[in-house]
Amino acid sequence: MCKGDDPSCADFEIHHRQFQEDMARERRAFLASRFAAKGGVAALSAGGLSLARRPPAARHHHLPANADTVHWGFFSKNLKPQLEVDPGDIVTIEALTHQASDDHERMIEGDPGAESVYLWTKDRKGVARRGAGDGDGQGLGVHICTGPVLVRGAAPGDVLEVRILDVAVRPSANPKFAGLAFGSNAAANWGYHYDDFLTGEKREVVTIYEIDATGEREWARAVYNFRWPNVVDPFGKAHPTIDYPGLPIDHATTARNWDVLKGVRVPIRPHFGVMGLAPKEANDVNSVPPSYTGGNIDNWRIGKGASVYYPVAVPGALLSVGDPHASQGDSELCGTAIECSLTGTFQLVLHKAATLDGTPLQGVDFPMIETRDEWVLQGFSYPNYLADLGAAAQSEIFRKSSIDLAMRDAFRKMRRFLMTAKRLTEDEAISLMSIAVDFGITQVVDGNWGVHAIVRKSLFP
Amino acid sequence: MCKGDDPSCADFEIHHRQFQEDMARERRAFLASRFAAKGGVAALSAGGLSLARRPPAARHHHLPANADTVHWGFFSKNLKPQLEVDPGDIVTIEALTHQASDDHERMIEGDPGAESVYLWTKDRKGVARRGAGDGDGQGLGVHICTGPVLVRGAAPGDVLEVRILDVAVRPSANPKFAGLAFGSNAAANWGYHYDDFLTGEKREVVTIYEIDATGEREWARAVYNFRWPNVVDPFGKAHPTIDYPGLPIDHATTARNWDVLKGVRVPIRPHFGVMGLAPKEANDVNSVPPSYTGGNIDNWRIGKGASVYYPVAVPGALLSVGDPHASQGDSELCGTAIECSLTGTFQLVLHKAATLDGTPLQGVDFPMIETRDEWVLQGFSYPNYLADLGAAAQSEIFRKSSIDLAMRDAFRKMRRFLMTAKRLTEDEAISLMSIAVDFGITQVVDGNWGVHAIVRKSLFP
Repeated sequence: MCKGDDPSCADFEIHHRQFQEDMARERRAFLASRFAAKGGVAALSAGGLSLARRPPAARHHHLPANADTVHWGFFSKNLKPQLEVDPGDIVTIEALTHQASDDHERMIEGDPGAESVYLWTKDRKGVARRGAGDGDGQGLGVHICTGPVLVRGAAPGDVLEVRILDVAVRPSANPKFAGLAFGSNAAANWGYHYDDFLTGEKREVVTIYEIDATGEREWARAVYNFRWPNVVDPFGKAHPTIDYPGLPIDHATTARNWDVLKGVRVPIRPHFGVMGLAPKEANDVNSVPPSYTGGNIDNWRIGKGASVYYPVAVPGALLSVGDPHASQGDSELCGTAIECSLTGTFQLVLHKAATLDGTPLQGVDFPMIETRDEWVLQGFSYPNYLADLGAAAQSEIFRKSSIDLAMRDAFRKMRRFLMTAKRLTEDEAISLMSIAVDFGITQVVDGNWGVHAIVRKSLFP
Repeated sequence: MCKGDDPSCADFEIHHRQFQEDMARERRAFLASRFAAKGGVAALSAGGLSLARRPPAARHHHLPANADTVHWGFFSKNLKPQLEVDPGDIVTIEALTHQASDDHERMIEGDPGAESVYLWTKDRKGVARRGAGDGDGQGLGVHICTGPVLVRGAAPGDVLEVRILDVAVRPSANPKFAGLAFGSNAAANWGYHYDDFLTGEKREVVTIYEIDATGEREWARAVYNFRWPNVVDPFGKAHPTIDYPGLPIDHATTARNWDVLKGVRVPIRPHFGVMGLAPKEANDVNSVPPSYTGGNIDNWRIGKGASVYYPVAVPGALLSVGDPHASQGDSELCGTAIECSLTGTFQLVLHKAATLDGTPLQGVDFPMIETRDEWVLQGFSYPNYLADLGAAAQSEIFRKSSIDLAMRDAFRKMRRFLMTAKRLTEDEAISLMSIAVDFGITQVVDGNWGVHAIVRKSLFP
């Protein structure tokens, strides 16, 4: 069925009108939430700057994902904020997976937000730019990011705490799949396995997973897989490999294999692969390599109940959220997780620079994760690759990473954390790291590879 | 007090007689268990070789740790077995930490087994050879290993399953410390941190930890730490760094700092750092680098309730156990864990080569760990370094390891496991590894570095 984007469809007019109405409804909801945000400002102004002023009650905003509210494949300090909030406010943000077009029927059809983002006819794309490169972005970066959200008063040197209050999977909008959600896992050319196949020739294989959208069933199961075909995009360009995000798959050109991972139950770990702030070092930054302001960390612990602390690099912080995952293992070996649209509810807490000394946030110049039971410190091959690798950093990073480098960084960060936040001597910190801190391999596929160090809070009763 | 090893002591004769009696008691218990083992043989012989023969009931043997039952710092296929058992038998094996001499008063004094092993006067050592080198072993290998245990009928190509039925800490034998056990953590010159201090000069620091020997308190706490002094051994040789195992510390030469890690509770994870079989590739093999037959894996999951599966490389398998740990983190960053004597009870189950096909053990040519909930596959920088690195392997391995290499090995092992044991295609295995297998950094301090891959059993209901 045409989604209002195919003028050759007999019912094009009806479909297009429906599409426009759906979009308008989303926009109205979105604008309403922005007015609420503006109301927040008014309240703040009315309160004046007296120290005795009580902060306004936290407001709840909603930022849907659609062609107007997302940026695709890059972070930028120059992006116009989609929402402005006060510190302490709560924001519900929709995040769309950039792999939904692997199964349009299950992950896009009937979903106005997803349809507007993925719209791609022979004449135009709903989101033309995809990536940090020139023109159409050249696919240099893949993640659909919703935002940015500007946090009023946030300034370089502050730390923004993003508390993940809730995470919900985005149900399929197609009535055929009521109560279900879907995700896609691509064993892609940038995967760790790609030069190391045991059987057969080099190939990219996409597996579609089904998730219970009601949240009752805590595991996903595979539905089918298919080998990546030579995809010709609506503009007529051929893509024999996955080299541009959002390529529409026509399953008439694939051989779907429905006999896949029969009986296997994949535990659900919903989380945001990408969450982070705009860095200051460059204008347009590929969304793939994570760095000191977060981004594509791909640590599955960034889920419900966790907080992530980010150093603010630019005024307003500029938070974006994307790359939602239903589940991922430590390493994200084949290049992707179960890429599945999610909606998160976040509270944004601002810790001003002047208040950090003597707290666990002192000296936090990297994304630090706090779960209910653990502190998780995120190391990278290059802690701030944009600064570390010079002018060509955005290409160099894809050639220079190693787990060994990331381990070194995670070690140093954990040592400093124990010395600063827990007031240990270096000798105490080093002993404790050896006997009670666990180092794990976060990912080996995102350009800037990750190792995390985990210390349980119960060590410090 | 003299332990029966100091002829200048006024009560030398009394002490020496006591020492001999204690040793004799241990030996009698030990020999009794060996006779029991021999009884097992008789029963087996009486049963003849009929296929209808029922296997003899599992016997329970006890192998204490003392100067006669341990080999220090090396594995060897040429070692005389300390015990011979039938497949299915249960063996209680005492394992002594090689760092007990960091605090003689707490970890050796009053313990005849430990005293016999650690005995070192100006004239002789209770265990003269410590390491895989010539003469006194040159300290090329550090772990006190109890064994080997010969498993009758085990042959190259078989898999020996070691089920860890129970693990108990070894209480201090000094009445001053009744109900307590102790361990030592050395931040040593082979630690990952050693060339990367943040404060002060290069140093080795030993921290003594206290454990509740009754098992009620599930956490350890630090007692004191001290900087490694220039230790002069009883033969008169100076050791400004930790370059030989079992050096006796005279705390008159140290400055003990009792204000260490105050209030910090280290969760207990008792496990065996070293457990493994004799490799076939060399005669005397340094106990530090782990390899395909196990050894110094230093994975804290090798504790109570776990099984480890080892490929048998030499007739009889020749199992040894040592390097007991009260707790360790993934990475063992500073070079050691909480090194604490333990006693384990193991059932030794032999899986004959001809029975492996079609089971999860098919193709297992590395140490595979099974816990209650998980399969843990152990990768190394070099899966079989003795074969991989040629004639100079035992020195080369200390120069060539990396986490990146170990990750590659863990990936390949997990892929094969999923394809063999779980009958997945390669494409299924690779997708599953990315979304549901966790890769962690086992250790970065044992010459041959380790990365493990964990898959939960609940994936396969």
